[in-house]
Amino acid sequence: MKISIAQLNVHVGNFKKNSEKIIHEIEQAKKQGSELIVFPELAICGYPPRDFLEYDHFVDECVSAIANIAKHCISITAIVGSPSFNTTKVGKRLYNSAFVLSDGRIKEIVHKTLLPTYDIFDEYRYFEPNSVFKCVDVNGKKIALTICEDLWNLDHQKLYKVSPMEELMAHQPTLMINIAASPYDYEQAEERLAVLKWNAKKYKLPLVYVNHVGAQTELIFDGGSLFLSADAELVHLLPGFEEQTLQLDVDKPSTHINLNNTSKIASIHKALVLGIRDYFRKSGFQKAVLGLSGGIDSAVVAALAAKALGPENVLAVLLPSQYSSDHSIKDAEDLVSNFGIQKQVIPIEQIYTSFENGLSDFFHGMNPDLTEENMQARIRGVLLMAISNKFGHILLNTSNKSEVAVGYGTLYGDMCGGLSVIGDVYKTQVYELAKYINSDSELIPENTLVKAPSAELRPGQKDSDSLPEYDLLDQVLYHYIECSKGRTELVEMGFEKSLVDRITGLVNRNEYKRYQTAPILRISPKAFGMGRRMPIVAKY
Amino acid sequence: MKISIAQLNVHVGNFKKNSEKIIHEIEQAKKQGSELIVFPELAICGYPPRDFLEYDHFVDECVSAIANIAKHCISITAIVGSPSFNTTKVGKRLYNSAFVLSDGRIKEIVHKTLLPTYDIFDEYRYFEPNSVFKCVDVNGKKIALTICEDLWNLDHQKLYKVSPMEELMAHQPTLMINIAASPYDYEQAEERLAVLKWNAKKYKLPLVYVNHVGAQTELIFDGGSLFLSADAELVHLLPGFEEQTLQLDVDKPSTHINLNNTSKIASIHKALVLGIRDYFRKSGFQKAVLGLSGGIDSAVVAALAAKALGPENVLAVLLPSQYSSDHSIKDAEDLVSNFGIQKQVIPIEQIYTSFENGLSDFFHGMNPDLTEENMQARIRGVLLMAISNKFGHILLNTSNKSEVAVGYGTLYGDMCGGLSVIGDVYKTQVYELAKYINSDSELIPENTLVKAPSAELRPGQKDSDSLPEYDLLDQVLYHYIECSKGRTELVEMGFEKSLVDRITGLVNRNEYKRYQTAPILRISPKAFGMGRRMPIVAKY
Repeated sequence: MKISIAQLNVHVGNFKKNSEKIIHEIEQAKKQGSELIVFPELAICGYPPRDFLEYDHFVDECVSAIANIAKHCISITAIVGSPSFNTTKVGKRLYNSAFVLSDGRIKEIVHKTLLPTYDIFDEYRYFEPNSVFKCVDVNGKKIALTICEDLWNLDHQKLYKVSPMEELMAHQPTLMINIAASPYDYEQAEERLAVLKWNAKKYKLPLVYVNHVGAQTELIFDGGSLFLSADAELVHLLPGFEEQTLQLDVDKPSTHINLNNTSKIASIHKALVLGIRDYFRKSGFQKAVLGLSGGIDSAVVAALAAKALGPENVLAVLLPSQYSSDHSIKDAEDLVSNFGIQKQVIPIEQIYTSFENGLSDFFHGMNPDLTEENMQARIRGVLLMAISNKFGHILLNTSNKSEVAVGYGTLYGDMCGGLSVIGDVYKTQVYELAKYINSDSELIPENTLVKAPSAELRPGQKDSDSLPEYDLLDQVLYHYIECSKGRTELVEMGFEKSLVDRITGLVNRNEYKRYQTAPILRISPKAFGMGRRMPIVAKY
Repeated sequence: MKISIAQLNVHVGNFKKNSEKIIHEIEQAKKQGSELIVFPELAICGYPPRDFLEYDHFVDECVSAIANIAKHCISITAIVGSPSFNTTKVGKRLYNSAFVLSDGRIKEIVHKTLLPTYDIFDEYRYFEPNSVFKCVDVNGKKIALTICEDLWNLDHQKLYKVSPMEELMAHQPTLMINIAASPYDYEQAEERLAVLKWNAKKYKLPLVYVNHVGAQTELIFDGGSLFLSADAELVHLLPGFEEQTLQLDVDKPSTHINLNNTSKIASIHKALVLGIRDYFRKSGFQKAVLGLSGGIDSAVVAALAAKALGPENVLAVLLPSQYSSDHSIKDAEDLVSNFGIQKQVIPIEQIYTSFENGLSDFFHGMNPDLTEENMQARIRGVLLMAISNKFGHILLNTSNKSEVAVGYGTLYGDMCGGLSVIGDVYKTQVYELAKYINSDSELIPENTLVKAPSAELRPGQKDSDSLPEYDLLDQVLYHYIECSKGRTELVEMGFEKSLVDRITGLVNRNEYKRYQTAPILRISPKAFGMGRRMPIVAKY
């Protein structure tokens, strides 16, 4: 049986475009002689639709788009993900469903059983779990059709009491199909393949897996749709971070392929470029503006933006103060010319003086402190936002994860921006990204990579004046944030108690700043944002 | 049987203080001869602890605090809410539990069955539902002990397949006890009482209900702990918005009482005052700063802050520009003197000029537009944040819900602040609050209530230049946001199609601004924040 798998980049709520895309792929697959074409989970509305699901009108649009797509399913079957209404009187309003379309109509609807409700997932907020299990018949082939998490209830780590595949095996399927919305993080591709292989091995069935590609606000989907043979060997793997549809023959697996090992840092780079590109494209914007300090963070963000949007669409603004070093200005100018991006220079010293004057009576006799440092950052914020407003550019935020974690940044200052590009990338990883970007030639000035990090808000300032060295800081942060290790466990791991108390205290106390941060492109298994929900007024 | 019910104001994660408070109440109840004392849901750690629950260390602290409290339970039984570990190999890591403490030890642990996962609730994110049902025996009395949502699976609106009380009735209890974490909104007290009465009526049992009081970041708990007789009559009701412990005799219900009808606007006022007070107290801050424009929003926030923190702890800053009207400045000054709050005046015109100069080359030949209006708002933001930083005051945000909904505010400008006081209060409700505040004497100048709302960012500007009249706007917003009515339904309700499209479009497009808003004190059934989760880059 020839099956097409469509790894699509849809847009949340854009029913017209999503439908057109799906119908186009169905028509192509027909021409190529496929008997079945498979689309990702909730393909009709995009993933995650979040609280739009609370609007009947939104779900009505999904269902009517599905009905329209069904008309195109003559001499081919399509499986398309969509929410559907729970028509019983008990339970949540909706199901997360896979619609099986054939003979111009909706032939069957299969609901998702296991509803991930952790990290970035909120599915039990909206959906009732399925409790009826049967296979889907396509041209005589019995298919165990499941949705994403349905395959993730591993024997050694059972998050759920029911396992849909266990139930479906009673009906003797000969093929597994799983439609998914499984977002990227730098560990996910490997884990995902392991989980899928575990299923193929356990149930001794070939497995067709279709995932989304593209970014939806902060979530980046890498695709990785694939076909595993019944002996759990990888037969087909669609390229990461690209839209693609592939026809495969599930009865005649071709030779096994090896996993193309993209390095972790290369995949992060691809993810961030896609994240920026889709944020702009799907919002209807073309141009970005950012403040360029001469430091590593803004350099890497400028490079990523130039790659994602084209250098002609990136405007770097240098905003020097009396504390900006000559080398920083030179590094920033070199970077601008290396990447061919646009440049403006606006010194902030006179504006700063006007604030000093405005506040001089009130602050009379008080020493300069963090207030004045923050004021410089905020003046830059006002200027960048003025440019953003005047020209319709989106301001890119350039804070890294280490800073965001410990609150080393100024709210409404350098924390401004519509999208945080590297807010999920630790400082040590930012250096890795810079080296990766420079792997062919020195695009980011070498000096930017080697000098000591500094916010340059007072004479001779260095990050290490107020923070531990990033190598150490990032290790503690990783174990605290990504691995949920508490203070006691961190000390048991060998980190100094005073350091652990200081860093975890900073992370907790700065929840209020992160609450007001721009959405952060997610590349790690635990990013700040929807996947990490902390109280602000807590004592812990 | 004499039972004490302890409507406490605990603090998320503050195990030391929470334990002391609980132990103090146990000792008092002992002295008064109570056989049982009941505390709210998750009383040991506060509600909601959110992702702190993902830290084993946090849950360990809960369990060890409970063990310590148990030691005090000699000759009295206590019921205390706490998370507990799921020790089976299947399901989520934790249960949401009620610990029954007696004879100096943990006698029983009852788990919550129905886990609310909607609006502001995320319980299935953390907890495994209970599936074992038995009554708790206290001195020979058989008690059906449940936790909050367990009583909310109403026959006419079954969100869940299991109903814990149905299961427990098989064991013939003679009393229901429900421990809760049920946050305030202006409809909740009435709905809560109706649901509890429905249960008492259905199961023909008396009901003891114990709820939290106090605010945890944006959530405000109003208490309303009560005792219903077996004929579903209200026998005791604890006062709203106040910590209190009451001893009652469940076998000798005294005369029935009538519900003390607090007006809706009076309850909103109490809720906001408590919300401000607890935000400051629990964060360790005393003083607030806010920008006072002479308009109604900042006037009401100043009044609420003065009530919550004391006038001596509120600093109002007047930040006039060339567009500020004389009457606005006078209204602001009158308000300051009526409330006896602190005042500073910092004109922004010269700072504005310095920005114009800084940007003049870049903006050469371009007409003034929203950019320049936003710039004024942002200059005010920088000044207020400088004062906040210098003196350690928390900046109060003064945006109302109507503005926040349609994006009529400047990001990093008037949207600055650590806490949004009236971001869940529609403009029309802000006027009601102002009248309520003025019910005894004219504290907010009458002129502030009668003049046309204006942002005063250009000559002669009025809100109605860019927005529909608030009476109409608020109606559409209420049905769109609180009632989840889609565009088609709104038009069917009689609102003009062009108006509906315009307003819903504004709400959706401004999701990106709300993403970066301060936490908003929640007083409605659908507030912006954790209870309303929308994608930013969606087309709908």
